Amino acid sequence: MRLLNDTLEKIKGPDYSLAQEAQSKLDSLTKPQGSLGRLEEIAKQVVIITGNLRPQLKNKAIFTMAADHGVVAEGVSAYPQEVTPQMVYNFVKGGAAINVVARHVGSRVVVIDMGVGVDLEKHPELTIKKIGYGTKNMAQGPAMTKEEAIASIEAGIEIFEAEYNKGIDIIGIGDMGIGNSTPSAAIASVFTGRPVEDIAGRGTGVDDAGLARKIAVIKKAIQINTPLANDGLDVLSKVGGFEIGGLTGVILAAATRKIPVVIDGFISTAATLIAFTLKSEVKEYMIAAHCSQEKGHGLMLAHMGLRPLLDLDMRLGEGTGAALGMGIIEASIKILTEMATFQSAGVSERNKEQNFKS
Amino acid sequence: MRLLNDTLEKIKGPDYSLAQEAQSKLDSLTKPQGSLGRLEEIAKQVVIITGNLRPQLKNKAIFTMAADHGVVAEGVSAYPQEVTPQMVYNFVKGGAAINVVARHVGSRVVVIDMGVGVDLEKHPELTIKKIGYGTKNMAQGPAMTKEEAIASIEAGIEIFEAEYNKGIDIIGIGDMGIGNSTPSAAIASVFTGRPVEDIAGRGTGVDDAGLARKIAVIKKAIQINTPLANDGLDVLSKVGGFEIGGLTGVILAAATRKIPVVIDGFISTAATLIAFTLKSEVKEYMIAAHCSQEKGHGLMLAHMGLRPLLDLDMRLGEGTGAALGMGIIEASIKILTEMATFQSAGVSERNKEQNFKS
Repeated sequence: MRLLNDTLEKIKGPDYSLAQEAQSKLDSLTKPQGSLGRLEEIAKQVVIITGNLRPQLKNKAIFTMAADHGVVAEGVSAYPQEVTPQMVYNFVKGGAAINVVARHVGSRVVVIDMGVGVDLEKHPELTIKKIGYGTKNMAQGPAMTKEEAIASIEAGIEIFEAEYNKGIDIIGIGDMGIGNSTPSAAIASVFTGRPVEDIAGRGTGVDDAGLARKIAVIKKAIQINTPLANDGLDVLSKVGGFEIGGLTGVILAAATRKIPVVIDGFISTAATLIAFTLKSEVKEYMIAAHCSQEKGHGLMLAHMGLRPLLDLDMRLGEGTGAALGMGIIEASIKILTEMATFQSAGVSERNKEQNFKS
Repeated sequence: MRLLNDTLEKIKGPDYSLAQEAQSKLDSLTKPQGSLGRLEEIAKQVVIITGNLRPQLKNKAIFTMAADHGVVAEGVSAYPQEVTPQMVYNFVKGGAAINVVARHVGSRVVVIDMGVGVDLEKHPELTIKKIGYGTKNMAQGPAMTKEEAIASIEAGIEIFEAEYNKGIDIIGIGDMGIGNSTPSAAIASVFTGRPVEDIAGRGTGVDDAGLARKIAVIKKAIQINTPLANDGLDVLSKVGGFEIGGLTGVILAAATRKIPVVIDGFISTAATLIAFTLKSEVKEYMIAAHCSQEKGHGLMLAHMGLRPLLDLDMRLGEGTGAALGMGIIEASIKILTEMATFQSAGVSERNKEQNFKS
């Protein structure tokens, strides 16, 4: 608990004093003011987050955390639970979608076993921080103890710090865990106050009967566990998951180091909601990469006032949307730092005499 | 006219016979079917366009074409006309937004003077194919002669072919020309049949009075020139521009070579509408990169049944949106060609016994 409390203590809102200077720089570049739209907004946000007018986004890392979920016993997923460890092996061998997209944008992938249901073979690309062999079935009681919830977050903090020491400019978060859209929907429903029906989606692809079952299971889990919407640890322990707790820790630690966090989809955003509830200032360090096709994701982002960059009907997770978003964010920073100014390029500015509005 | 006619003759719809094989490959990869959304659609489209199940998108080129417009005499732009040549120099020196974004995605930029109002200094990075020193004022008569319209398209065809011979896997199109959102809006209004008010936007940033003047000028140009909506050459010559004609030629030539064309914003899409009117099959070779903030762009894309990939409130042109889109498209092809399959990675497939729908 001490590491978590110390981390929460260290998180301060970013310093907005560079915002004006960043805007002036953007407005001096050879383009009509504001004509690069969200690229300009994002560049400014990265300046504010990092406190650096010329940020570099060379060292990138996606944290892809895996765990299993007791609630799969209720038949809420289209895939068998053995897929969780199989996909972890796929990640460390570089064959999964997140590996491909991360390579494309020049990011490393940090793969962590936060609580897969079986012991995994050792691999140099795999970090093992197992909190347990999957959560308990939240439809029958709390998914984990309060101590396990704290341990999962603190493990995430330690994992981030270890990578930070290797050098990191920007991070993305991602997930793997058969069944994990079920706890994520529960978390989202509790924090947003919206009915489960508005939040829960088909995950990896359940049919109508599967979706109805999933919604009933989530309602039951919320009913019997009564998670408290103003208490992130309570929600995490009662209806969360070990990978969700680990990602929460990564987000919190990144905020203490003023490192931009690129959020992925439904499950990553559930972790973001927990971090946001523990310390609302973390929101300032986050960039929502995309709007997932998974129902309710848009509501979760809106609850925190985050606007996604991309909308490509993706619903895979793993950090794939975050990695694609990183490519866009890096382009925005290159715009800020590499473009010529009106002065340096000898380009005339707007027609002053016409008094056009910007 | 012969080169143009030969080119139109050569354009055939793509071969859809590989669509099923591409889909099967996508469905064999270690992810729930369809979970990468539009990335999967785009990968399949590139397979269909290129006729190659393992396309490579290594050689990329953005064609950024510049020209001036007589209609600026009517006070339709927020910037003075001297900015057109100044920005061309900025392009060839690598300081403009398109240079930055193209470098980011690994694309070269081919800069062409299609009709800038002054003679430009020679530069190794500048191709000069000047059709004229800017168009005539379309509010007082045709912007160019029919011969000039043909010459501009044929110049675009030649420019594409020269680059094709150097090696090209995918291209983007972009523009530079003070005032060119005015002819583009005229073109869009003629082809879509929508009122000018629904199409014309603020371009580089005119104020309310400037926008009202711009709308009146476009209406007048359409009224006095009576361009024929079913005749691409007629529309180009009466209310077009030399860079718009050049881009039309690039699009047509790319379709003959089965090279995917990534469309940029408002002006590029005006060129696409002309190419589409000359030969509707070109649509199959095009990928709309983004929806510009410029009013009416969405209508233009919808008219051709094209759905943009990105929506980042951009309105700069130059090919900046096309270059960003290329990065996403390349990611989609790496997904197709680099990911492990369920079989190769030893990952279990869906729960068969539960008979889930896909």
